[in-house]
Amino acid sequence: MTGSVTVAGLGPGDDALVTPQVTQALARATDVLGYIPYVARIGPREGLTLHPSDNREELARAAHALDLAAAGRHAVIVSSGDPGVFAMASALFEAIEAAPQHQAVAISILPGITAMLAAAARAGAPLGHDFCAINLSDNLKPFATLEHRLRMAARGDFAMAFYNPRSKSRPHQFARVLDILREECGPDRLILFARAISTPDEAIRTVTLAEAEPGMADMRTVVLVGNSATRRVGRWVYTPRSAS
Amino acid sequence: MTGSVTVAGLGPGDDALVTPQVTQALARATDVLGYIPYVARIGPREGLTLHPSDNREELARAAHALDLAAAGRHAVIVSSGDPGVFAMASALFEAIEAAPQHQAVAISILPGITAMLAAAARAGAPLGHDFCAINLSDNLKPFATLEHRLRMAARGDFAMAFYNPRSKSRPHQFARVLDILREECGPDRLILFARAISTPDEAIRTVTLAEAEPGMADMRTVVLVGNSATRRVGRWVYTPRSAS
Repeated sequence: MTGSVTVAGLGPGDDALVTPQVTQALARATDVLGYIPYVARIGPREGLTLHPSDNREELARAAHALDLAAAGRHAVIVSSGDPGVFAMASALFEAIEAAPQHQAVAISILPGITAMLAAAARAGAPLGHDFCAINLSDNLKPFATLEHRLRMAARGDFAMAFYNPRSKSRPHQFARVLDILREECGPDRLILFARAISTPDEAIRTVTLAEAEPGMADMRTVVLVGNSATRRVGRWVYTPRSAS
Repeated sequence: MTGSVTVAGLGPGDDALVTPQVTQALARATDVLGYIPYVARIGPREGLTLHPSDNREELARAAHALDLAAAGRHAVIVSSGDPGVFAMASALFEAIEAAPQHQAVAISILPGITAMLAAAARAGAPLGHDFCAINLSDNLKPFATLEHRLRMAARGDFAMAFYNPRSKSRPHQFARVLDILREECGPDRLILFARAISTPDEAIRTVTLAEAEPGMADMRTVVLVGNSATRRVGRWVYTPRSAS
């Protein structure tokens, strides 16, 4: 009896953005694990056990999936967006590293539409040239590391995408991020606040760094910052391919 | 008679990675435009005109799609991967900027699974912490700009993904990129050469920067470079979520 663990990206929210590969994996699953609102997207059916769990339970969830696979079950861990971008794939490999007996388990990582690319598509093409993705979540790195990384990204003239911009435990951190960006990029740089993309709550707001305020982001927002060439054309925002 | 232009991401190659949203847009299209091998993925049907064109014809292709929409047709420009990542979305907005009469055209950008995320998923989770995406194509920016950007990304300890690593017109440039990376990141940093991901020709090779050679990349390869914490676990490569 050979089990498996699959980590599947559900995309940003709209089922029309779930790949057929992920849909097929879910149809074969015996167990679906994940953060409560993501598991809520999976329809119940006979033979499928749902295991919703809280946020910040990533390592325990991964270990649970590995145990299920060792017992011959087909566990699918669902992530929003892409599982390899600030989501469950790394947590799974951390769990395997901590429990090497699980290295023989059959593992599949199934990509998904990650939030920054769904947001960019709705806004135009703000990530159309070289760009960075940065997790602003405060529990995974010291602020000094984040500050250095932001400055390097700005000095490299990368466009940027920020995940988890507003933190419950350190609500003032995003204000400092905006200050650093204004210092490095100037007041006229475009910044986009993309909330709940592809859901009924979708909203995108484009402002300059001078106009940006921390309250424009919440836990459902991905933030995009243009590079020095990013501009508006009509209602769209785009970065030319030859931005230098 | 109101036409439209849709830019749709076909993902890296496997039809199981094409979103239902893109499949629906293709079913409604009257015209499909794109680089020859991407248009070749679209099945012919009554009422659909295929317009394959050569690489480096992006602006002309975008202008053609806008003209078709102005004539009331529903044009879909197909990109591989995600249209907003080094693909056709920016070219479309460049074309609109150059011909403002087209600003009223109905435009949709439909995201897709971009090569770096498909490659990362097959390798494990090498982009599991902050990362950059950089286009190494030589015709869009001076090498000095690229070199500066690479050094900033390395000093910020970003993982990196390189698109278009080998150029026909400057085949030696990628060797210089590897030299810069060895200088900034040291010889032991992991680098992954992911070729033709999700196709029958798929191959992934993971080596250290000391072992990396320019010939490991070709025009169908996306290259991933780990950050300072990226490591192997079994046959997988991953970057921990808390990499500092």
